[in-house]
Amino acid sequence: MKASCVMTPTPAPLKDEILRASSALFSERGYHGTSVRDIAERVGLQGGSLYAHIAGKEELLFDIVNRAADQFFAAIKPIVASERDAMQKLRQAIIAHVEVVAGDVEAAAVYTVEWRHLSADQKKAVTARRDEYEKQFRKLISDAIQERYVTATDPAGATLFILSSLNYVFTWYRPRPGGKSPAEVGKMLSDYIFEGLKRRAAVS
Amino acid sequence: MKASCVMTPTPAPLKDEILRASSALFSERGYHGTSVRDIAERVGLQGGSLYAHIAGKEELLFDIVNRAADQFFAAIKPIVASERDAMQKLRQAIIAHVEVVAGDVEAAAVYTVEWRHLSADQKKAVTARRDEYEKQFRKLISDAIQERYVTATDPAGATLFILSSLNYVFTWYRPRPGGKSPAEVGKMLSDYIFEGLKRRAAVS
Repeated sequence: MKASCVMTPTPAPLKDEILRASSALFSERGYHGTSVRDIAERVGLQGGSLYAHIAGKEELLFDIVNRAADQFFAAIKPIVASERDAMQKLRQAIIAHVEVVAGDVEAAAVYTVEWRHLSADQKKAVTARRDEYEKQFRKLISDAIQERYVTATDPAGATLFILSSLNYVFTWYRPRPGGKSPAEVGKMLSDYIFEGLKRRAAVS
Repeated sequence: MKASCVMTPTPAPLKDEILRASSALFSERGYHGTSVRDIAERVGLQGGSLYAHIAGKEELLFDIVNRAADQFFAAIKPIVASERDAMQKLRQAIIAHVEVVAGDVEAAAVYTVEWRHLSADQKKAVTARRDEYEKQFRKLISDAIQERYVTATDPAGATLFILSSLNYVFTWYRPRPGGKSPAEVGKMLSDYIFEGLKRRAAVS
């Protein structure tokens, strides 16, 4: 049933559609709860014909996770490289991160939850990318502490606090007419993270 | 292979062990990536003998999720009923919630991620319990806003912000000698949530 090699290149829109369908199914039913037949059905192909376009289910998981990682890196790259001060950079990175998560909650769910079903080698490659991304994020936080914009005695804890509140967005955010946009959710979280919830005398 | 009814009651320690093994496997491999045979092996039984103690894999998932829900309710019940002010209640509820999550990250992962694989009826029952719990948490936040301890124009958004930063803890917290205790992680997150990360003139 499995083609030994892909003979003709798959048109990009079809590949995108296959990955979108796989993201939706993996996030809904779990990686192991989804079959190649399920994916084929979702894109209107026979299971056998789908194998002309993909090497297997695992490759799809790897592609989804890597595309999500690409998006996270691309989102913060211009911010990291910019000349803004550390606090502005950190705020903008938070909003950019949430825009990626909320912009495609299904891919974010796969990136966050289903990635653990990758093969050992693929997992190693993905872990290296996740670590590199977190390192860049931690650097923004350390710079903001260094420049005395941010008060945190524990940068590692602060990083976990920030990324936790951002990453969990995939579980509750769904775009809907009249609702908050991904950027607005990012702005809201950024405000809460920096201002805190406690009312201060000066505020009232 | 499946017993139509359970003839003898299963001793509580064995039931606990089966649920612990199931939590570990579901959180590691996913619900659909785990077989009853895997669970039986983990507790040192034959697949067939395990069926003397469980109705099936789905019942195990339902039990784990309900036990986690029980723990969340039990953790905040005395706090909700206490005579403390709204801010103290909210801080203590946050710490208590994190103690449940960090106290058993495998069960928390199943409660947060794998619960979507429950049957429709079970899912409905669990959703009702989750909603009730979130309602109690939202009430603590609304009270804190009402009593002017907390500044938030958007209580629903504030609740999502708080619960996101707390629930995601299962992905990164692992108990280790010399590391933070679950209560210490709760205290750290509570401080970040209320104080915010921004340095203020009065602080330095």
